[in-house]
Amino acid sequence: MTKTQLVEQIKLKQSYLCVGLDTDLAKLPKHLLKLEDPVFEFNKAIIEATQDLCVAYKPNLAFYEAMGPKGWLSLERTLEIIPQSHFTIADAKRGDIGNTSSMYAQTFFETYGFDSVTVAPYMGEDSVKPFLEYKGKFTILLALTSNRGADDFEQLELNSGSKLYEEVLRKACSWGSSEQLMFVAGATRPEELKHIRTIVPAHFLLIPGVGAQGGNLAEVSAAAMNEEIGILVNASRSILYASSDENFAEAARAEALSMQEEMSVLLQMAGVV
Amino acid sequence: MTKTQLVEQIKLKQSYLCVGLDTDLAKLPKHLLKLEDPVFEFNKAIIEATQDLCVAYKPNLAFYEAMGPKGWLSLERTLEIIPQSHFTIADAKRGDIGNTSSMYAQTFFETYGFDSVTVAPYMGEDSVKPFLEYKGKFTILLALTSNRGADDFEQLELNSGSKLYEEVLRKACSWGSSEQLMFVAGATRPEELKHIRTIVPAHFLLIPGVGAQGGNLAEVSAAAMNEEIGILVNASRSILYASSDENFAEAARAEALSMQEEMSVLLQMAGVV
Repeated sequence: MTKTQLVEQIKLKQSYLCVGLDTDLAKLPKHLLKLEDPVFEFNKAIIEATQDLCVAYKPNLAFYEAMGPKGWLSLERTLEIIPQSHFTIADAKRGDIGNTSSMYAQTFFETYGFDSVTVAPYMGEDSVKPFLEYKGKFTILLALTSNRGADDFEQLELNSGSKLYEEVLRKACSWGSSEQLMFVAGATRPEELKHIRTIVPAHFLLIPGVGAQGGNLAEVSAAAMNEEIGILVNASRSILYASSDENFAEAARAEALSMQEEMSVLLQMAGVV
Repeated sequence: MTKTQLVEQIKLKQSYLCVGLDTDLAKLPKHLLKLEDPVFEFNKAIIEATQDLCVAYKPNLAFYEAMGPKGWLSLERTLEIIPQSHFTIADAKRGDIGNTSSMYAQTFFETYGFDSVTVAPYMGEDSVKPFLEYKGKFTILLALTSNRGADDFEQLELNSGSKLYEEVLRKACSWGSSEQLMFVAGATRPEELKHIRTIVPAHFLLIPGVGAQGGNLAEVSAAAMNEEIGILVNASRSILYASSDENFAEAARAEALSMQEEMSVLLQMAGVV
């Protein structure tokens, strides 16, 4: 999917919602556990209940890996039922020396056919470049994350006067255009989202941290939206586990709908639709 | 495995060699490809040919993931035949927000039973801590890696006067002792290994980059060894693909033997055995 196609989908649905599929066997409604593939059945119900309200799905690889080989089968089956119209993100936070990053890129872009993958920048350019070599795919690089630990290294000031995450943004811009590269920027720091926009005006930002982690949708959107919208706001736990009952899919839909309705208003207020 | 047990194994075998199992289907000897699980058969032959010469095995997860669910089965079968006496490293470079890192820790320490896992520090303390909660397991944190990209961020000077990788070493020391934590430090920068030793005198260092990446074993060992030896030197491609013929296991053994013999001399020269 290209950036233009993604923007079209956002305008069509009046939504920049990404639903994070952090599907945790321990949190699934009990009645699903007797089925052969509870993770897939849960994802299927969530996707059916939310697909008209969101533009992206983001499976969190940790949750699938933890189940061993059958977790990867649940992931494969899930990817098969995500409509082509939706942008898919492998939330994998990978990154290694070149020949190894090439293998990771192959896994997510070829074996699984994801549109994008999240990548950690610590090891620098040659650990990121192999992901950027895939045409029509996106690399989503960690910049400023939503967790407390972002203060430990990402926020450190360099002797150049920049913070580390600012240096990551600036360097990465020379590695790939906004047609290939997006950045993770946490919703828990709206004042900094505004600043990030000045460094990367054209790149899409993937914004986690609204919902369970406490970020505010209106604040975040006002700070980070650009003329092409340019943001995907992710919610995982607040949607997936809105109810732990048999009505979980309806509860998830209600939560996604409430976000989409707010997004629709915010898009109109911003004058981008 | 505890640090004491690892040091005992090193002394017993006069070897601090770690064999990296970056098993790439595209590079396997042709005669293996007709077998049902070529990756496992290759690993089995490599392990049988090298186990008396090395103290650790390090499967590189990228190579198993790239094969889909059957890659994870090959990994499981490989782990089953690695002797208990050997330290196992999941080279996974994971790291995410707390609840996700907990899932990764569960995967590698519980589902697969690895002794250790490599972790990227970018997201800070709460992304690393869930790995450190496992008693008797090791977290191997990236500090200064062996690739060119290490100059992009790891080597940046902070306004405190430290480099980023030095700050990673110092902060991480307050998160876990040398009984729980090791660091990745690349062989391609021996002058900096010496410096790293002054910051983390007691922690084990996992040193990649000897072999295909060009690091020199004697230089690296002289720079990084401590009184408890304190280093694991990894070689992957130079051992695995020493020959692409039917004699690949013998060729791998010859390469591993040559490294072990040099290590034996270096250990004696250092007076630590």
